[in-house]
Amino acid sequence: MSNIVVLGAGVMGSALCVPASDKQRNKVTLVGSPLDDSIIRELKSSREHPTLNVSLPDSMDALTLSEIDPGLLRKADVIIIGVSSPGIEWVCDLLEKSKARPSLLALITKGLVKPDNPEAVPLTYADALNSYLTEQADSLVGIGGPCIARELALRIPTRVTFASRDIIHAESLRSTLQTDYYSITTHNNIVAVEACAALKNFLCIGVSAMLTAYPLGDSHAKNPVAALYNQAVLELLILSRWISKDSPGNAKTSDVAFDLAGMGDLHVTVGGGRNSRLGSYLGKGSRLEDLMSNELEGVTVEGVDTGRNLYSGFTHACKTGVLDEKRLPLTSSILQTIVHNSPFNFDFNTLPT
Amino acid sequence: MSNIVVLGAGVMGSALCVPASDKQRNKVTLVGSPLDDSIIRELKSSREHPTLNVSLPDSMDALTLSEIDPGLLRKADVIIIGVSSPGIEWVCDLLEKSKARPSLLALITKGLVKPDNPEAVPLTYADALNSYLTEQADSLVGIGGPCIARELALRIPTRVTFASRDIIHAESLRSTLQTDYYSITTHNNIVAVEACAALKNFLCIGVSAMLTAYPLGDSHAKNPVAALYNQAVLELLILSRWISKDSPGNAKTSDVAFDLAGMGDLHVTVGGGRNSRLGSYLGKGSRLEDLMSNELEGVTVEGVDTGRNLYSGFTHACKTGVLDEKRLPLTSSILQTIVHNSPFNFDFNTLPT
Repeated sequence: MSNIVVLGAGVMGSALCVPASDKQRNKVTLVGSPLDDSIIRELKSSREHPTLNVSLPDSMDALTLSEIDPGLLRKADVIIIGVSSPGIEWVCDLLEKSKARPSLLALITKGLVKPDNPEAVPLTYADALNSYLTEQADSLVGIGGPCIARELALRIPTRVTFASRDIIHAESLRSTLQTDYYSITTHNNIVAVEACAALKNFLCIGVSAMLTAYPLGDSHAKNPVAALYNQAVLELLILSRWISKDSPGNAKTSDVAFDLAGMGDLHVTVGGGRNSRLGSYLGKGSRLEDLMSNELEGVTVEGVDTGRNLYSGFTHACKTGVLDEKRLPLTSSILQTIVHNSPFNFDFNTLPT
Repeated sequence: MSNIVVLGAGVMGSALCVPASDKQRNKVTLVGSPLDDSIIRELKSSREHPTLNVSLPDSMDALTLSEIDPGLLRKADVIIIGVSSPGIEWVCDLLEKSKARPSLLALITKGLVKPDNPEAVPLTYADALNSYLTEQADSLVGIGGPCIARELALRIPTRVTFASRDIIHAESLRSTLQTDYYSITTHNNIVAVEACAALKNFLCIGVSAMLTAYPLGDSHAKNPVAALYNQAVLELLILSRWISKDSPGNAKTSDVAFDLAGMGDLHVTVGGGRNSRLGSYLGKGSRLEDLMSNELEGVTVEGVDTGRNLYSGFTHACKTGVLDEKRLPLTSSILQTIVHNSPFNFDFNTLPT
């Protein structure tokens, strides 16, 4: 039996409770962050998750933070961090204080971190976000791949990838969570998974602009979407290789980017979620700052934060020739939009030949 | 000035006349196949293409086969073969008899050919379809990448790839056709482009079944589509590498499959066109033979022909260990459906771990 605690009752953490509970021998506890009190209340009264609109399994517990037994986190075999990126520091703090030392610490939260030296390569959460994650580095499992939370919670076939520095941890989490509808591949390049997962949110913004930039009849033209989707995957590879740095013995970054964590996840991200919503507005000519104080006020768009944390390292790497900017026109355009509030008018003639 | 003749007035051949005519110094003639008489008649009276629903440029000529000057094909600098796969032998026959020796012979038509030895690897049209194509092998340019014909004809940004054995021919065709809305990359692995272009139609059938197999609200679940799209690209790489055989000096097949001709084209193919329509019916539980004598009667579904021509070589390659069937569950499932008329019930547990 595994004692599984999911921290954060947002859609993805909550959805993961479904396969976790369907494995008969697991004991699953979903713990809400301080922002999740009303979700936990609804789960207690009806089992229905208010944003997933799905009933969660009866066998699991749903608790607010104030309700948990002080030993709960310390006794957990598996802890899944399911908060959104602004909550990551808070979670690590909580885990540190609780002296939690799970055999497996899984990361759903995705993002890039700006290094202290602004000219350096951005870091992923698997690198060195804080002392707790550094200490737990060996037990860390990154989760990537195309997964709309609600569909997973509805037990619709979903295929993702788990990665850890020593593959044995990814495999162990797989045996804890895999069901007939939740199919999992494993490898040992966690930094590449984390880089792909964060960057696909960022690149999705530019691809999604094509969902509105060329309206056609009741829908939109598909050639520009496919062209920029394709370009986004190529740029995802270049950027994730820069961040993850291939090393012997590790799964190659290209094998990660051209698979579930990159190509597959970007496929599902364009057209769903907040990053795609932002892109769709930008495609109609809006500017980021206007959107953030109107249509998207108060909304966390993780791809924007990723872009901001990517910017200075990217600019330096292009200037010094470490990255070839000519091969990264989509990245450059999205960064202009995010950092300089420029309109996103992607020029197809900037694509490499 | 280039003298460009497009053979076949179907949607793709006709759409290519738009960028070809927009380059000021080209003289473009669209020649209908014997099946295209009514299209040519409409083009003459109104310039409107009846299946594209787009007006074609005034500067181009549209002729039936019986109207062409006997020297037209012989004098052409560029001939673009735009018929669908059942017409390819007819076109080559016509070109042979007309003593056409264009500097560039471009192929829009896509498909695989069953070799004489049923155990051998299937061939692409760039290999050895007939004596005419063999003779013209050096001038042959394969065209791949995500391109819905109507969108190209509407001058919406579209990005594709051209390939020829000596890259100089692909580059030359690019300078003849590239416009600000028609962006073209080039390389020298024409067999890989042809293999990807044919196989993506075939694999699209299985991915598109996911558009109907898991209905959700007014739409459908997206996790299974993304999972099988991802798997399809991985299998496209394995199959196209088997067919194209990487050789030094050639663009790597992986660089072709994980780019416009494979990954990009499959993105646009799922959800549009006849292969995807077939897949959508299969996803609802129909069988191929029923569909072919009812909903899809008389419709050419190129992915089905590709599957039939792939089957015996594939089976032999799996039996002898040249291909690892465990890594090709989607291909196997689609082949069962096409060759044995089985229902397409894809089992996600057959996906490799």
